[in-house]
Amino acid sequence: MGLHPAVAAVRHGVRRAIAGLERDHAVLVACSGGADSLALLSATVFEARRPGVRVIGVTVDHGLQEGSAAHAARVVDQMAALGADETATARVHVDPAGLGIEAAARRARYDVLEQMRVHFDARSVLLGHTRDDQAETVLLGLARGSGGRSIAGMRRSFDHNDRPLLDVARADTVAACLAEGIEFWDDPHNSDPGFARVRVRQRVLPVLEDELGPGVAATLARTADQVRDDVEALDGIALASYERIGGPEGLDREELEELPRAVATRVLRLAALAAGARDSELFHVHVTALHGLALGAINGEVQLPGHVTAYCDGSRLLFRPTAVAG
Amino acid sequence: MGLHPAVAAVRHGVRRAIAGLERDHAVLVACSGGADSLALLSATVFEARRPGVRVIGVTVDHGLQEGSAAHAARVVDQMAALGADETATARVHVDPAGLGIEAAARRARYDVLEQMRVHFDARSVLLGHTRDDQAETVLLGLARGSGGRSIAGMRRSFDHNDRPLLDVARADTVAACLAEGIEFWDDPHNSDPGFARVRVRQRVLPVLEDELGPGVAATLARTADQVRDDVEALDGIALASYERIGGPEGLDREELEELPRAVATRVLRLAALAAGARDSELFHVHVTALHGLALGAINGEVQLPGHVTAYCDGSRLLFRPTAVAG
Repeated sequence: MGLHPAVAAVRHGVRRAIAGLERDHAVLVACSGGADSLALLSATVFEARRPGVRVIGVTVDHGLQEGSAAHAARVVDQMAALGADETATARVHVDPAGLGIEAAARRARYDVLEQMRVHFDARSVLLGHTRDDQAETVLLGLARGSGGRSIAGMRRSFDHNDRPLLDVARADTVAACLAEGIEFWDDPHNSDPGFARVRVRQRVLPVLEDELGPGVAATLARTADQVRDDVEALDGIALASYERIGGPEGLDREELEELPRAVATRVLRLAALAAGARDSELFHVHVTALHGLALGAINGEVQLPGHVTAYCDGSRLLFRPTAVAG
Repeated sequence: MGLHPAVAAVRHGVRRAIAGLERDHAVLVACSGGADSLALLSATVFEARRPGVRVIGVTVDHGLQEGSAAHAARVVDQMAALGADETATARVHVDPAGLGIEAAARRARYDVLEQMRVHFDARSVLLGHTRDDQAETVLLGLARGSGGRSIAGMRRSFDHNDRPLLDVARADTVAACLAEGIEFWDDPHNSDPGFARVRVRQRVLPVLEDELGPGVAATLARTADQVRDDVEALDGIALASYERIGGPEGLDREELEELPRAVATRVLRLAALAAGARDSELFHVHVTALHGLALGAINGEVQLPGHVTAYCDGSRLLFRPTAVAG
């Protein structure tokens, strides 16, 4: 019997992700019990055998759903049965204040996975996000809308985390589980239309596929890769420009004028943040106004969130704390 | 009676577009007879009066629909009635061979509008594309998918063309016409689901608005603006890099390695085109392969469309014509 193509696709992604690891290195697989992360775990066990890499399966119990502890225990058993060398449950407390529940759960999850990685001395954490997750992220970003950054999607790797399945369709992780006889869990959150991501999955992407042809998810994921490269390059170029022309005595307006707008606006953002402007409230409209001020298209001052005022003094653009009426 | 806000929005866009024009300068308005271009024409007549700018209304007869000549004659009458200083019909022949009918019609339209602009000695051609057209263009680009370029949407201006209504909702052009008692034409093409653009308008955007909240069209248009800035900046930076490190003796691999991937891949594209690779068939996958070759991640040669072979010779990446088997 030949290897099922879906199993091969999942293993192919994993193989690249662990290519640098050697005998007795460890890799941690984050596993929810869903098809994507179980397929990931199974493929990692297979691919790790030959180089002699240890596989640590970790499931995170967010404590947000009824019976989550029992669910975590089942996933731990399943990971062990699939051949993980070690398994663990990581319990986290999710405090939704400020961030909202989805973002707070994500933050808590990544924090505890990093602690687990250090605990088990693992080289990296493998995450089961698929190409469909990436497409959904791009569409959610498009709707939120703040330029390239918002549609750059998820990174293939960050810190010690890798996403080996970003080129693999979600349907292939399901097919891989079925082909290998792995029972997987359908998270009820994944069909709750209260989540924007679920609405994108169930309503938006199918319409895009119907009207614009199949393969839209793959196209979105591919576009995200290129846009991410673009954004990272410009961020790097802007940082170098800022280090060259920025400083406590402000920015030279002529130097700013020489820069392409995409670089100049990024330099202005860096300068505004260094002057104390509040990152979370500093929007493109502010940075565009700063650019207009620098170029002389706007006169006067620009007020920035965080009580920072930008103004021009001859050839320089400067920042000062906003005067508060007494 | 106050000015209708939709009329004000359209005029605001036009005011910025003709701000640089002086007495006896002329501006050409391309007018299909639809709500967007009639609102544009009417606003241009209003805004041009004070500075004494002449308004030339031109409608293009593509000869693709039954009765198109009679329709063009009606649009000419309407433009004159709305106060255009001069009017004209431009007849074009659309040859769909190669490009497809939509692209061929667009090419023919822009060509003839430029001829008309020169004929009337007009400073610029105003086009009636709205924010909704921009959002549709972004979504069509997303589905086609070739990175940032594909979602950068339409430029606000190019050559002698301006799009003053890219920040104006299509509904506002309709409302402006209704408020001013202007009868407009509904192009049957605009509701023909045989066109992908029509399906995006009628099916995709409404679902996006339903599922992700209103204002998606505005968000898409805003994202396009920023992505376009990013792409233009990187194209410029890459051209400068190519002029610095490229030449008949190929590219220096160490120099390429210093560049961020988004710049390096653009430099490699420029080099491949200079070596004779065929632009229309040179895809991201080719350029990515060239990058792998330069970095030593791929060994051997890379075949490019247009019978060009890329190879490495020590520290340099080089191109030569592909040897054809005899």
